[in-house]
Amino acid sequence: MSTKNVRIEKDTFGPIEVPAEHLWGAQTQRSLQNFAISTERMPPALIRALVLVKKAAAIVNMENSSLPRDKGEAIVKAADEVLAGKHDGEFPLSVWQTGSGTQTNMNCNEVLANRASELMGGERGEGRKVHANDDVNKGQSSNDVFPTAMSVAAATAIVEQVLPEVKALRDVLAEKARAFKDIVKIGRTHLQDATPLTLGQELSGYVAQLEHARGHLELALPHLYELALGGTAVGTGLNAPKGYAERVAKEISRLTGHPFVTAPNKFEALAANDALVHAHGALKGLAASLFKVANDVRWLSSGPRSGLGEITIPENEPGSSIMPGKVNPTQSEALTMLCAQVMGNDVAVSVGGASGNFELNVFKPLIIHNVLQSCRLLADGMRSFRLHCAVGIEPNMPRIRENLERSLMLVTALNPHIGYDNAAKIAKTAHKEGKTLKEVAVALGLLTAEQFDQWVRPEAMTGQKD
Amino acid sequence: MSTKNVRIEKDTFGPIEVPAEHLWGAQTQRSLQNFAISTERMPPALIRALVLVKKAAAIVNMENSSLPRDKGEAIVKAADEVLAGKHDGEFPLSVWQTGSGTQTNMNCNEVLANRASELMGGERGEGRKVHANDDVNKGQSSNDVFPTAMSVAAATAIVEQVLPEVKALRDVLAEKARAFKDIVKIGRTHLQDATPLTLGQELSGYVAQLEHARGHLELALPHLYELALGGTAVGTGLNAPKGYAERVAKEISRLTGHPFVTAPNKFEALAANDALVHAHGALKGLAASLFKVANDVRWLSSGPRSGLGEITIPENEPGSSIMPGKVNPTQSEALTMLCAQVMGNDVAVSVGGASGNFELNVFKPLIIHNVLQSCRLLADGMRSFRLHCAVGIEPNMPRIRENLERSLMLVTALNPHIGYDNAAKIAKTAHKEGKTLKEVAVALGLLTAEQFDQWVRPEAMTGQKD
Amino acid sequence: MSTKNVRIEKDTFGPIEVPAEHLWGAQTQRSLQNFAISTERMPPALIRALVLVKKAAAIVNMENSSLPRDKGEAIVKAADEVLAGKHDGEFPLSVWQTGSGTQTNMNCNEVLANRASELMGGERGEGRKVHANDDVNKGQSSNDVFPTAMSVAAATAIVEQVLPEVKALRDVLAEKARAFKDIVKIGRTHLQDATPLTLGQELSGYVAQLEHARGHLELALPHLYELALGGTAVGTGLNAPKGYAERVAKEISRLTGHPFVTAPNKFEALAANDALVHAHGALKGLAASLFKVANDVRWLSSGPRSGLGEITIPENEPGSSIMPGKVNPTQSEALTMLCAQVMGNDVAVSVGGASGNFELNVFKPLIIHNVLQSCRLLADGMRSFRLHCAVGIEPNMPRIRENLERSLMLVTALNPHIGYDNAAKIAKTAHKEGKTLKEVAVALGLLTAEQFDQWVRPEAMTGQKD
Amino acid sequence: MSTKNVRIEKDTFGPIEVPAEHLWGAQTQRSLQNFAISTERMPPALIRALVLVKKAAAIVNMENSSLPRDKGEAIVKAADEVLAGKHDGEFPLSVWQTGSGTQTNMNCNEVLANRASELMGGERGEGRKVHANDDVNKGQSSNDVFPTAMSVAAATAIVEQVLPEVKALRDVLAEKARAFKDIVKIGRTHLQDATPLTLGQELSGYVAQLEHARGHLELALPHLYELALGGTAVGTGLNAPKGYAERVAKEISRLTGHPFVTAPNKFEALAANDALVHAHGALKGLAASLFKVANDVRWLSSGPRSGLGEITIPENEPGSSIMPGKVNPTQSEALTMLCAQVMGNDVAVSVGGASGNFELNVFKPLIIHNVLQSCRLLADGMRSFRLHCAVGIEPNMPRIRENLERSLMLVTALNPHIGYDNAAKIAKTAHKEGKTLKEVAVALGLLTAEQFDQWVRPEAMTGQKD
Repeated sequence: MSTKNVRIEKDTFGPIEVPAEHLWGAQTQRSLQNFAISTERMPPALIRALVLVKKAAAIVNMENSSLPRDKGEAIVKAADEVLAGKHDGEFPLSVWQTGSGTQTNMNCNEVLANRASELMGGERGEGRKVHANDDVNKGQSSNDVFPTAMSVAAATAIVEQVLPEVKALRDVLAEKARAFKDIVKIGRTHLQDATPLTLGQELSGYVAQLEHARGHLELALPHLYELALGGTAVGTGLNAPKGYAERVAKEISRLTGHPFVTAPNKFEALAANDALVHAHGALKGLAASLFKVANDVRWLSSGPRSGLGEITIPENEPGSSIMPGKVNPTQSEALTMLCAQVMGNDVAVSVGGASGNFELNVFKPLIIHNVLQSCRLLADGMRSFRLHCAVGIEPNMPRIRENLERSLMLVTALNPHIGYDNAAKIAKTAHKEGKTLKEVAVALGLLTAEQFDQWVRPEAMTGQKD
Repeated sequence: MSTKNVRIEKDTFGPIEVPAEHLWGAQTQRSLQNFAISTERMPPALIRALVLVKKAAAIVNMENSSLPRDKGEAIVKAADEVLAGKHDGEFPLSVWQTGSGTQTNMNCNEVLANRASELMGGERGEGRKVHANDDVNKGQSSNDVFPTAMSVAAATAIVEQVLPEVKALRDVLAEKARAFKDIVKIGRTHLQDATPLTLGQELSGYVAQLEHARGHLELALPHLYELALGGTAVGTGLNAPKGYAERVAKEISRLTGHPFVTAPNKFEALAANDALVHAHGALKGLAASLFKVANDVRWLSSGPRSGLGEITIPENEPGSSIMPGKVNPTQSEALTMLCAQVMGNDVAVSVGGASGNFELNVFKPLIIHNVLQSCRLLADGMRSFRLHCAVGIEPNMPRIRENLERSLMLVTALNPHIGYDNAAKIAKTAHKEGKTLKEVAVALGLLTAEQFDQWVRPEAMTGQKD
Repeated sequence: MSTKNVRIEKDTFGPIEVPAEHLWGAQTQRSLQNFAISTERMPPALIRALVLVKKAAAIVNMENSSLPRDKGEAIVKAADEVLAGKHDGEFPLSVWQTGSGTQTNMNCNEVLANRASELMGGERGEGRKVHANDDVNKGQSSNDVFPTAMSVAAATAIVEQVLPEVKALRDVLAEKARAFKDIVKIGRTHLQDATPLTLGQELSGYVAQLEHARGHLELALPHLYELALGGTAVGTGLNAPKGYAERVAKEISRLTGHPFVTAPNKFEALAANDALVHAHGALKGLAASLFKVANDVRWLSSGPRSGLGEITIPENEPGSSIMPGKVNPTQSEALTMLCAQVMGNDVAVSVGGASGNFELNVFKPLIIHNVLQSCRLLADGMRSFRLHCAVGIEPNMPRIRENLERSLMLVTALNPHIGYDNAAKIAKTAHKEGKTLKEVAVALGLLTAEQFDQWVRPEAMTGQKD
Repeated sequence: MSTKNVRIEKDTFGPIEVPAEHLWGAQTQRSLQNFAISTERMPPALIRALVLVKKAAAIVNMENSSLPRDKGEAIVKAADEVLAGKHDGEFPLSVWQTGSGTQTNMNCNEVLANRASELMGGERGEGRKVHANDDVNKGQSSNDVFPTAMSVAAATAIVEQVLPEVKALRDVLAEKARAFKDIVKIGRTHLQDATPLTLGQELSGYVAQLEHARGHLELALPHLYELALGGTAVGTGLNAPKGYAERVAKEISRLTGHPFVTAPNKFEALAANDALVHAHGALKGLAASLFKVANDVRWLSSGPRSGLGEITIPENEPGSSIMPGKVNPTQSEALTMLCAQVMGNDVAVSVGGASGNFELNVFKPLIIHNVLQSCRLLADGMRSFRLHCAVGIEPNMPRIRENLERSLMLVTALNPHIGYDNAAKIAKTAHKEGKTLKEVAVALGLLTAEQFDQWVRPEAMTGQKD
């Protein structure tokens, strides 16, 4: 690296060369060199949350006069630039760094300090007008500001990304359930033919699963809304001004539009990440639900000839060039794969959550990386599945009718008319000879075709009010 | 097996020999032979819940006259005997059976039918006065009654076993937190010495963890309170009388004292076990919290000489015969082991929950086995840890004071008095020479011993109101 | 408990009442009271392995004259009684005890000491002729003898239980694969119809999975064969005689018939349980393989009318009384459930394995409990699936032929004869009109029925040599 | 997108606009639009492996004259460009796509076809001289070529990335173990003081763990070396020339330098991914081992005053500005975090591996994504931990000596000289009064200071030959 393109930044470790075009400082640069581990970067949503928290802190610090207004306003402006996406390339650190997230906290402090300095007409680098620690990090410690950003990022992702997609998928499926409410089809338990239900009823089960999943996620929010900020290094709030924690939480609440509050117990808020472990449990539950739904859809659309084939799904890409009707359930495949990932992530989050010691859990980057990845996977996965699959689910009426008519389960409807023994005889003969109940019933002379049609009415077995 | 000791029971498969002294019938016997798999039996708490549900069904069936009063009362009486523990040896089936739990449902039906018959003065066996299916299982299908029993068993275990133990442990720790509220000790982050806090504050973090865990578990209950009964085979409620689902749920609610209701969507209630997946997520979260608490306790009590040694815990069993003061943290070890099991169980439950198809999830015995095991492990584990460890936690004052006094972190308190540079000089010298801050400060002539004692007051750094 | 039925046993903690009819002593009794946690008992297979190791140690101790021959022979005799199942009720301790397994080690020491004393004509209790620690535990420490027993139990379970069942199931499936080698059926990828293969080929994939699983398990044995004994308390072998470790390993090898050796590094053998973590990874891999096989079987046998229905499986218990042909795949359900349990157990084992500290891993009972449970589940599960399902798998020829004949994938065989465009036209028409390829081909006048039969030969597409 | 910057590509679905500057074609573009899911891209190592396999196939296809030499050479050249990193921006597809990896297979086919065409003097786009399917994909199906690439990528990552780093870390630790072989320190079991060992012995346990982990990984390779190629769509090898599978495997072996062979059973090779499930089990085992090592290191270096403090580790970044000696164990934190991720990934891989159906497992992208991520995490994590932590581990001799001297466990060395009772008396007094054994022993008049030094020689308790 030629000296022309670098500047010298310093920390207590001494000077270090930093690429001149970047806003970050010494500690970021050092972390880049010390943690050259894999490709997972600290998630942008976490960076945004952290910068937003720093903006809120600057506002409160100006209010209580601990931060000069010119510096504070420059920090707020710099933060707004980051939040607007203007400095996306300035946060290069790995997830796999110090377990407190300190290095990413310093990354944000350094970027905001240098940028705020420039906004004040100063330079970036050691001559800067704004101090990364004394000004940008004022009233914060990595140990409280990083978990605060985790809470903000996770709650925001759940509320703004996941929940709307749960609802959108639920709505599409509910609309389908309404549309298909009179389509009687065979039921299946143990993968075996069972008594009939309507296609709408079948889909209504998925709707109920998603509604419950939504409820579970919403119940996970209040704990997430509790913010660690104000606990400083070990939870005692050493050096934090009185009332500071409450005021910052209120400001964060105002900036995000979500009801964040200061955590009643800061020791728990630093030493544990239980709110995130619990929230991820709900995400994992949603993954399990979606796994079932996506599996049902791919099985119901299996075929075209030798599968169940009771529904059709949109064809989004080439299957076989010569073979029509072969529509690979690719959206189900993508969705089930990412649900499996969320189940794996849950273990990573749990192990991380269980592994705190004393005043600090130092598995924080792992935890938030997985929580935000799971949110993104589930939100995007549900959107993709909805747009490219669920909206296009249609009944394959000939197959549905064929399956229903061939079903031997319908014989139970004859019991009151011809007795259990005769009904069983019809079913057994039909099974043995591979015929329909109707054919056999008539052939055995036990009833007429008209009687069969009158008595065997699958729609009456679905329990739906007419 | 000599013919003297057996009787012949029959099902649609034909006759089968059953040990004469047992109340079970043909299908139980067949399952015993077909599923000779490992030693895990269907959990007693599930059996009790299933029998209780059958009692409730019999009561409702008598009310709506679908079951003759004499038979119904005999079934209720037989059920009460089971619930009183009189027939514990009659439920021998493996967890690893049909995935719908049908065989355990039949086990209960057969036992209650035979026992009810005897109570009516009849015999056990084929001449019995009460029919396992037509009478005991009336208005039920394995597919709805088994998940109903799962919900009843799980909710009951959480409410009656787990939650009281969470509260009891929380209370003991809260009492300790109060008792130790003025004991100032060194904090630790990254396992490194940090600014001080009180031992009470440290424990208050555990209390907050348990309070949140309690909240998470309580939030998992409403979904669990939704009962599948009334859905019959596929969720349509075929053959279930109108109003039956609501009345049985009410009766179960009355018998258990918990607010069970009928599930608004029976298709979800049969095809998915999402309420249990979600509830186990909360149990797993509790396990992660306890893992941290138990780990802290064993580390804080490590020693006697070469560990942290800031607390002592009860000595419950012989450690070393010659070496005093070596108290192995066996309760922490048992608790962390069982928490690891609960984390493993969570994966089993999630895989099971994700693997349903169409109208029925057939991983039900796996799921309830794990949920009830986790409840039992956590409840018993917390009780054992509380009684044999937590109640006896005491501060080791000499070590706490020694650690605090030797701490270099306290130097920060001198900044306002002698300036940052002088303070840092003291700390660095103390670190290099292995001395206390006070020794060095006085030796360097920067302040007097009296000034040191006056200015360096760790208790003032804990943020506690006095 | 009346004083008549108890005796007083003592340890360094003082006297304690023990039920007179039991052989265990003070430390077992204390553990029973201190660890009243759930129902999981230390597995019998571990107890047997531990007692066998103590027998081997006694033999070596007699050889090197550190143990008097009369005592040694009494210990060996007592051990043989335990191994013969005569004292199964004497090992009541919970899995959830001290993480080193010390209490179960003492349980064995106490039982053998009391029983050996009786065999020498002495009494059980404080006047006994054999000392639990000085004689039975001679040359051992809990810290080395317990992991030794874990290795012995796990290796034995894999070699004697799991591997034979893998082979037996493999053999049955291989026999089926041979028997069905000429049955051409439709293939399925993405659950969609694909080019044909034989049923034998399909089953051969399962055979290959099991063969690989067997290989994986065998590769896990050498590390398991390394025994910790001789490391004593922390791995240094303090107080163990020279050559002792090697001689005991040889004796254990002789007694078990398996090639156990002394671990080259005892520090690893105590502080880590990596051999068990690795071995369980192979067990979990087997579980994943079986999950796939069991799922395929239940799907292929789904129906009777509205499923895939290409194979039939044995009917082992009543399905529906009125509905013939409905055979619930209960063995597949039991097998997939227990595979999910093994996947969960794997997480418990991994968390336990990762959580050792310094010279000792104290998650040992958790680890061996899960390893042995997984062995038992898989061995019994494979046996049950083999005997009650796999041996009875038969092709459902009419359905197989119907599916094959209706398949649109066969059209590719016409390309060389009538060109790609004409072939595609046939397929598309057949799909649209729901007809067979043959019907359409003839109707379109593109070829004769004879030509169709001559050119479209699915068996030629299976790549099997004739 | 303005029409200037796009070209039109076609597939059987019709025309679609593709950015003109990119080499990919219609199916890649369609996948981009249909699977806009999260940020995880198909791993570059998988892309490289897939392109290498296509190169090998082209070479074999030229040999057997099924591919014209000019086209084949252009494909090889294009592949070499990709392998040289010249087209890294051309493989934009998400992990979360079709479960067979078909879309990424087509992405490679399209890029190579367009680039090969350019290399032949032709254009990119619909007028290209090389066909993506007929030429580049010749003799391959997504269903066999994708799992082949998975095997190649995974085996290569393990052999070239993971194993060298296991060895390098092992070597550094072995060197430390040798260097510290005479440093006697206190042992710890149950976190409690135990008999002494040397620091070298303690580290030798880690060395043994890593050696075993290396063995486990090597044992996972042979199954990974089995390649699916030649199985084509369902494993029958339909349309693959005789001998093709063997020749391609040999060519891949030549190109990679690793002993790949053709899978003896292609049905297993497509329908299951058991080799990868098993290999990831070994990676997870390594993660569990490293978790223990990293934990020990951070605990042993805890302090500077109130921790164990027996070793020092390199200080790589600023800790506290004022507090010297506070070195956060950030490398241990990064390593334990990524080990937790690997444990989570293992669940994702297992669920994916268990979820195949019939002739194809469609969780392939999930599985390879996790396997390669785990390889990268472990390799990079071990390198980082080695370079920035392990190489700099040094004993903190004063603390080691202090802990050793204060240890009460050493009293056992006095037994032969003054008897057990006197020794115990010394230990108990020392514990009660907080004194050293030596002080107490002399004060009690039981022996002289000289005798104490002569008799209590911790180094003699470590079992090391001198």
